[in-house]
Order: sequence, then structure tokens, then C-alpha cells
Amino acid sequence: MSVITVERKVLEKNDQIANELRNKFRSRKIFVINLLSSPGSGKTSLIEKTVEQLKGKFNISVIVGDVQTDNDAMQIGKLNIPVVQIITHSSCHLEAQLVRDAFKKIEDEPIDLLIIENVGNLVCPAGYDLGEDKKVVLLSTTEGDDKPLKYPAMFRNSSALVINKIDLLPYVNSSVEEIKKNAKSINYALNIFEVSCKTSEGIDEWCNWLLNQIKK
Amino acid sequence: MSVITVERKVLEKNDQIANELRNKFRSRKIFVINLLSSPGSGKTSLIEKTVEQLKGKFNISVIVGDVQTDNDAMQIGKLNIPVVQIITHSSCHLEAQLVRDAFKKIEDEPIDLLIIENVGNLVCPAGYDLGEDKKVVLLSTTEGDDKPLKYPAMFRNSSALVINKIDLLPYVNSSVEEIKKNAKSINYALNIFEVSCKTSEGIDEWCNWLLNQIKK
Repeated sequence: MSVITVERKVLEKNDQIANELRNKFRSRKIFVINLLSSPGSGKTSLIEKTVEQLKGKFNISVIVGDVQTDNDAMQIGKLNIPVVQIITHSSCHLEAQLVRDAFKKIEDEPIDLLIIENVGNLVCPAGYDLGEDKKVVLLSTTEGDDKPLKYPAMFRNSSALVINKIDLLPYVNSSVEEIKKNAKSINYALNIFEVSCKTSEGIDEWCNWLLNQIKK
Repeated sequence: MSVITVERKVLEKNDQIANELRNKFRSRKIFVINLLSSPGSGKTSLIEKTVEQLKGKFNISVIVGDVQTDNDAMQIGKLNIPVVQIITHSSCHLEAQLVRDAFKKIEDEPIDLLIIENVGNLVCPAGYDLGEDKKVVLLSTTEGDDKPLKYPAMFRNSSALVINKIDLLPYVNSSVEEIKKNAKSINYALNIFEVSCKTSEGIDEWCNWLLNQIKK
């Protein structure tokens, strides 16, 4: 029983900080995405493509979570936007308090869109509110089409699904139709985008959706 | 401080059950692999290929962990070997107690090799001993070559690294040499295998290593 009590307290504390963050983001009209996926699905590549496309229209900042290394922050930093790296060490997900601390380092910047790249993990980050407006889950075609069924919480809690690496479809056994069918069976309201961060196919549609969300 | 205490108790309890399991496996001369990777790296496919190759030589059983669905167990079950599915619901890793309960369902079977397919997650399962002889981490070429640096605990604790989907190398930006260099920088003693579960390339070398481990 003691474990359950402690876990509930941890989540309550997280939700409280997430709500404070959400109020702060809203008062400053910052639209916030919590970007989630397995390791290697292409979160950093999607952020790069998104920043390239929307940089002239909006002020974008990125907070990157990783268990170890600042590789992703260094990569995104080449785009000349404010980037903060959170290294979680052994922890498998971002928590609101980490985002609050990271945000302090960029809060004087003009920001319209804040993208939080979560730790690569399809399980644990699903339960932690970071004060975002929308959770977006990214899935690569190479991961197989059954993943929405096997990791339902992530797909249930997300507003959009970006299916990445569609350029690899001729070489893998996955079907985009099957991914979509399985994802919709978990969350019918999911907005689904098919992209290749390598060829840039589909990036326009994804960015248009994001642009409309920011304007709301 | 209370959280730390509780977490330590959970791990102590896990280690105690893992040790009991290890003693049981050893007394029965069962060689046990704890197979770890991201979602969609090909754990189930590697198990299928391994069982196909070694089935005539050894009695193999499989315990499969998933957050949700019994797809993998149904798939492996087609090979006519004893398979037990553990559905963890929201939990992100297997614990020794779950393996103990699952093993009870197959303990009357003759078993030389027990493969435990962990939940698809490169972070959390690293810390939980399941009584195995060896941890084996699987990484797909599509996940990028920096993953050993970003998820070091998993690679540090493993005895072998299987690099899967080498048939996709012409279409992705990863380099096997870079994966190996990064993995060796974390754990120099790693035995590394390059395979394609699609074309069967490299499966022989992996199975030979496994065969030698079982015979020890």
C-alpha cells in the first residue's frame, strides 16, 4: 500500500506543477507540443523539418529530454533557435518539474511554439502531464503496424499521430493502412499524418495542422 | 526520502525473487536469456528465427512481456513450443515476480533454453534482474547509431548486442561500424552480431554463440 500512496503523491505533485506551467504558457500565448515516440522513430528529425518550415512564421523553442547525451540538442541548436537539453540520467520520462526548470532558461525569449521532445519510450511518458496543449505521438513504419494496440495509453492520450519513414515502406512488412486502422481503434479522434523526414514528403500537411493549432 | 526508500524495497524484493529463480533455473540446467529492445526492433522475429534454427537441438520455451495484447505469444505459439504471455497493463518492464508466476505454467515442460522477451523499452527493464543468465539487447539499424550512447544502462548490462534489420542499411543513415563503436565505448566486452530476421543473414553466427552458451 505504501508504494501506491507514494506513486499517487508523485503524480499529484506532477499534475500540480503541470497546471502551473499550462497557465504560464497560456498567459504568454505559447502553444506547447509534447512529442513522444520509441527511441529512433525520428523525433529530432521531425523537429528539424518543422523548424525549417515554420521558422519564418513563428518563434520556436525546443526542450529536449534524453536519458544521456546532448546529441539531439546540439543537432537542433544548428537551426539557431533556443534549445535546452534535459538529461534525465536513469529516469525514463520527463516530469513537469524538469520542464519548469528547463523553461526558466529560455523564458525571456519570444516564443510562439514550444516543442518538448520527450525521452524515447512508448510507455512511461504517457502518464506525465508536462503542461502541454497537445501530445503528439510519432511512429516509424519500421516499428511494425501493431504498436498502437501494444502501447495503447500513448495513442489514447495523443491528439495527433505522425507516421514517419514512409520512404522505407517498400522494404518493410508494415502497412500504413493497418497502422491507421489500429490507431483509430484506440483513439478515433487522432489526426494522422504520413511523412518522411528524409524526403520531406507529407511535412507540409503536418506543419499546416500545427500552424492551425498555434493560431487557435 | 520516502520515495527512495520504497523504490529500494521494490528492487530488493525483485532481486530476492530473481535469485530464487536463478537457483531454480540452474538446478534444472535451463539457460535463460532476457531479451531487451525498443518497440519494433524485432524481438519476436529474432525469437522465431532462433527457435526455427535450434528447435531440433534443444527444448525451447518463451515468456513474452507486453503492455497490452498477446499478439507476440500467438505468433511464437505457431512454432509449437510452450509460450506464456505476461500482459503488464501500464507497467513498462517485467519484474521477477511476474516471471516466477509465468514460469509456473510451463515448469513441467522439458526446457534447455528459456527466452524472456521483455517489454519494448530501452530504459526501464535495464534495472530489473529476472534471474536470467544473460541479458541480450537488440537494436535495429533504423533506430540510428547513437542509441548505445543515449541508453547506456541497457548496453552496459548486456552480454550481447544483436544489430537487426541490416537489410535496410542501404536505405537508412545508420552505420553498423558507428553502432559497434558506440556500443563498445559503453561496454567493451559486448558480443556483437549483425543480422536480418527478414533475409536470415547472420542468424547462424548468433545461434552458434547461443548454442555455445547453452552448452557451458
